[in-house]
Amino acid sequence: MCRFLAWVGAERYLDELVMNQEQSLVEQSRNALIGKTSINADGFGLAWYSNRVEPCFYKDTNPAWSDANLRQLAHHTQSGLFLAHVRASTGTATSRNNCHPFGYGRWSFMHNGQAGGHERIRQKLDSMIPPHLYQHRFGATESEAIFLIAHGEGLEVDPIGAMLRAVERVEALSRTQRALPYMRFAACWSDGKRLFAARYASDSYAPSLHYRNSEFGIIVSSEPLDANQDSWTEIPANTAIESDGNDVVVHPFLPSAPPCQVSAA
Amino acid sequence: MCRFLAWVGAERYLDELVMNQEQSLVEQSRNALIGKTSINADGFGLAWYSNRVEPCFYKDTNPAWSDANLRQLAHHTQSGLFLAHVRASTGTATSRNNCHPFGYGRWSFMHNGQAGGHERIRQKLDSMIPPHLYQHRFGATESEAIFLIAHGEGLEVDPIGAMLRAVERVEALSRTQRALPYMRFAACWSDGKRLFAARYASDSYAPSLHYRNSEFGIIVSSEPLDANQDSWTEIPANTAIESDGNDVVVHPFLPSAPPCQVSAA
Amino acid sequence: MCRFLAWVGAERYLDELVMNQEQSLVEQSRNALIGKTSINADGFGLAWYSNRVEPCFYKDTNPAWSDANLRQLAHHTQSGLFLAHVRASTGTATSRNNCHPFGYGRWSFMHNGQAGGHERIRQKLDSMIPPHLYQHRFGATESEAIFLIAHGEGLEVDPIGAMLRAVERVEALSRTQRALPYMRFAACWSDGKRLFAARYASDSYAPSLHYRNSEFGIIVSSEPLDANQDSWTEIPANTAIESDGNDVVVHPFLPSAPPCQVSAA
Amino acid sequence: MCRFLAWVGAERYLDELVMNQEQSLVEQSRNALIGKTSINADGFGLAWYSNRVEPCFYKDTNPAWSDANLRQLAHHTQSGLFLAHVRASTGTATSRNNCHPFGYGRWSFMHNGQAGGHERIRQKLDSMIPPHLYQHRFGATESEAIFLIAHGEGLEVDPIGAMLRAVERVEALSRTQRALPYMRFAACWSDGKRLFAARYASDSYAPSLHYRNSEFGIIVSSEPLDANQDSWTEIPANTAIESDGNDVVVHPFLPSAPPCQVSAA
Repeated sequence: MCRFLAWVGAERYLDELVMNQEQSLVEQSRNALIGKTSINADGFGLAWYSNRVEPCFYKDTNPAWSDANLRQLAHHTQSGLFLAHVRASTGTATSRNNCHPFGYGRWSFMHNGQAGGHERIRQKLDSMIPPHLYQHRFGATESEAIFLIAHGEGLEVDPIGAMLRAVERVEALSRTQRALPYMRFAACWSDGKRLFAARYASDSYAPSLHYRNSEFGIIVSSEPLDANQDSWTEIPANTAIESDGNDVVVHPFLPSAPPCQVSAA
Repeated sequence: MCRFLAWVGAERYLDELVMNQEQSLVEQSRNALIGKTSINADGFGLAWYSNRVEPCFYKDTNPAWSDANLRQLAHHTQSGLFLAHVRASTGTATSRNNCHPFGYGRWSFMHNGQAGGHERIRQKLDSMIPPHLYQHRFGATESEAIFLIAHGEGLEVDPIGAMLRAVERVEALSRTQRALPYMRFAACWSDGKRLFAARYASDSYAPSLHYRNSEFGIIVSSEPLDANQDSWTEIPANTAIESDGNDVVVHPFLPSAPPCQVSAA
Repeated sequence: MCRFLAWVGAERYLDELVMNQEQSLVEQSRNALIGKTSINADGFGLAWYSNRVEPCFYKDTNPAWSDANLRQLAHHTQSGLFLAHVRASTGTATSRNNCHPFGYGRWSFMHNGQAGGHERIRQKLDSMIPPHLYQHRFGATESEAIFLIAHGEGLEVDPIGAMLRAVERVEALSRTQRALPYMRFAACWSDGKRLFAARYASDSYAPSLHYRNSEFGIIVSSEPLDANQDSWTEIPANTAIESDGNDVVVHPFLPSAPPCQVSAA
Repeated sequence: MCRFLAWVGAERYLDELVMNQEQSLVEQSRNALIGKTSINADGFGLAWYSNRVEPCFYKDTNPAWSDANLRQLAHHTQSGLFLAHVRASTGTATSRNNCHPFGYGRWSFMHNGQAGGHERIRQKLDSMIPPHLYQHRFGATESEAIFLIAHGEGLEVDPIGAMLRAVERVEALSRTQRALPYMRFAACWSDGKRLFAARYASDSYAPSLHYRNSEFGIIVSSEPLDANQDSWTEIPANTAIESDGNDVVVHPFLPSAPPCQVSAA
C-alpha cells in the first residue's frame, strides 16, 4: 500500500502540502496512520503541470524524507495541479520505473492498491497493454499496466469510464488466479485540467481516500493532512470524483459483474 | 554496445582482471578501444560463484569507475568462475534491472549486442518468455529476454543449442520489423562449472570477442586486456566456445535462418 | 540513533544474522523495538574480514530492506568476523560517506549515538583529527571523527583505552556547547582478530547493547535478535567487552570527566 | 576538470542550453572537446532562480546523459538566471555533496579547476572556513571551500574582490605544499540578479571559459555550444566578467603576489 495526495486549484508551492502539514505526505512516508503499512519508503514521485501540456515528473527510489532534491523542488515549484506519491512496494522492485506517478502524453496517474496474484498474471497483464503503448511500459507494476490499459479503453475521451473498464479487466484477470484480494484501487489521474480520483475494492477494504474543498481548490489525499477531521470528506467506496479546482462532481465507480468470475469470496 | 569479461579456472581476486590490467574492464568503461561506443557507463554488474550453487550478483547503475563498492568487492572477492559487465544502453533505461549479468537458478548470462527494432518487438518478445519464468523478467532488455527464452529452449541440458535457438527466435522476430541489424550477439553464460561464450551477427559485424588460455584458466573478454596481442585468440563469428578452465572446446554457433538475408518474413 | 550487530567466531553466512532472525538487523531497520527511533533507513553498511588484512566494505544509502545487492552479498558471503549497521541520521546527510562501518587500515568501526551540539562543534572536531589521517575523513559524522581521533590516541596498541580517550575528548568539546546530551555512545570496532564493544553515556541513557555467547562465537547487537531474552546479556553502561570468538573479557569504559556533570567547562 | 554553463537574461527553458545544442552541456558530459578530460560523468547539478530569493538546486551523482529526472526538469523549468555543471572528479568521491553548484543564502557557485595538493591541504582549508558557515560545508571539494571562504571575505558586498581574495588564500595554502598546479580556476557565481564569471590560473593553463552575448541575454560556458566560433568570446586569463543579462562588464581577476609563497615555479 502507498500514500498519495493531489491538488487542483490556485497555484501553490508543492511543499505546502507535501511537507508543511501535520500529517504531510512526507510524514506519511514515515508514519502513515491509516492502513497496515506505516512505512512508505520504497521511492516517491511528483508530477506537476505548468506551462507545457505534458506534466513534469520527478521520481526517485530514496525515502521521501531523506531526498534533498525533493525538498528543494517542492519548496521552489508552484503549480495549480500536481500529484505526489510515496510508495510501499507490494512485491516489485524499488526502481524509478516502478515509482508513481506514471505519465503518457498529457496524462498522469498514481495508485494505491494491488491486483491479487500480480506475479502470476503479469505476463497476461503485459499482453493486455495496447501494442502502440507498450513502449511506455517501463516498469513491472500492475498500476502502470492499468494506466496504459485505460488509455486503450479511451481515457482521452471518457476518463472515468475508461479507467473503470481497465480496472474491470484487470480484476477479471486477477479472479482467474483466485488470489485474494482481486482488486484494491484508490487512484488519482489528470489531463492537466481536471483531477479525477476513484476508490474501489472487490472486497470491503477499499483503500482510504479523502478530499478537502476550499475556495482555492481541492486536495485529494489518502489520509487527512491534519486533525481537523470535519474539513475532510471521505470518498465512499465505489465512487469517483472529478474536479477542475472549483466544483467536485461525484460519479459512481462500480465495475460491472465480474466478467470472468471463477468463484469469488 | 557493452563490454564484458569472464574467468574460469583457479580462484583469483576479481580486481586482477576487472581493474588491474592495462585495458581492464573498468578502463573499458571509460575508453573502449574496439567498436563505436567508447563509453560504457550505464551501469555494471558482477556475478561470481563460490560456495553456493547459485552465483552472487552485485549490480548497480553508476559508472564502474566511480563505484566505491565495486572497488571493495572486486578487491576482496576470490572466485574460480566469474562474469563482469559494463553497460552502454542501446535505449532502455539505466536501471539495476537492466544491468547484466542476469541470473536464474545456477545460471548467469551477459550480453553485448542488440536485436533490431527492439522497442517495436518488445511486447512480442515478452510473450515468448515461458510463463513460469516470467516472474524472473525484471527489466526491459532484449538480453534478459533471450536468456529466459533460452531456458525455455532447454539451456539446462543443451547450453549451446538452447542459446542458439533463442537467438534464432529473437532474430526471426526482429526480421519481421525489417529493422537492421536483426541480431548482434556476443555473450557469456555459465552454470557455475562451465563457461560458454558465443559470437554471432545477422550481418558481418559480430561484436568483438576474444579469449586467452593459460595454465591457470581461461579469460573471455570483449577486448584484449593488454597489448600482447599474440596471447589473445579472436573468437570467429558464428562460433561458440566452452571451457571448464582447462580445455577450450569450439562449437559452431550458426542459427539456421540465413544470417545475411535482407528480405524479411 | 542507529542499530548494529557484529559477529566473531566460526565462519558463517552474514544473512544468518543480518536477515534470517526474528528481530534481524534488516527487521530492525523497519521496526526497532528499543529506543525512540523505530525506523533506521538512512543507509546501511557491512564490513567483513576474509583473506586480506583489511576488511571489505559494502555500504549504500538505500533502506536495508530494499537493497537487492545487500540481500545477495549477505546470502553469499561467509566470514568469521563481521560488522553490520543500519543508520538513522541525527542530522547529517544520507550519503555513502556517512554510512557505518568506517575503516582505516585493518580497523573497522561502527557507532550508535551522538555528540551534543554536533553541528556547532564539527569544525573543531575536524581539527582534532590527526593531520595524517584527515585524508580518511570522508563524511561529516561525529562517529567517523571519533574513530579517526581514536587512531591518533593509539587504537593500534590500546584499542579500548584509545577509544575511551577519543570519547572523552569529543565529550569535552561537546560540553563547551552545553548542548545535551553531551555523549551517547554504543560502538563496535575490530582489527580483524578481536571484536570490541562499548556502551557509555554522559547521562543515564546509554544506547542499548547486548551480546550472546555460544560455543561457535559471540554476537553483539543493539537489540536481542530473538525473544529468548535469557540467552542475551545486556552490556552495562560504562563497560566495554572484548572477544576473539571464544571468551568475553569485560573492561570498564568510564571517561575521566564526571559523566553526569551538567555544568560545562 | 569539469564543464559548466550559465545563463542570465530573458526567461528560457533550461534544456535549450543544457541539452538542445550541438555541443550542449550534456554532450560535453560525454565528449568535451577542450581540455584533457573528455568524460564529465561524476555527477551534475542545476541551480535556477525563480520566485524565491534562494535558488533551487537539483544535483545527483549519475552521468548527466542518463538521468531521467534531469531531462524532465530541464525540459519543464524556465528561468532567467541559471547555472548548470557536469563533474569530472579530481579525486574526491562521487557524492551529491560534492556536486556543483553549491549554495548559501541567495548565492550559488560552480567551479572547474583544482588546488594543488588538495588532499594534503584539506584540513587547513576546512579550518579557513568561517565558523558560522561551517554548517554549510557538506562535502570535501576545494570548490565548496573556496565558495564559503569567499563569503567570509565579503562576497555579499564585493562579489569579485571577495572571490579573488578567497582564491588568493587557497592558492597560498596550496603553494605551501609545492604541489603543482597551485591553482586552476574557472568559475561562475550569482546572487540571483547578476552573473559573475572568472578565469585564472597560477600557471599558464587557465581552464577554458567563453561567453556569448545576444539581445536576450548572456551565456557563459566552458566550451562554445556550437561551431559558430565567431559568436563566442573567450574570456582571457586573469579576467572576470559581470552581467545582469544586458551588458557585460569586464574586471581584472589577478591575485596579488602570493602571500605565503614558499618558492613557486
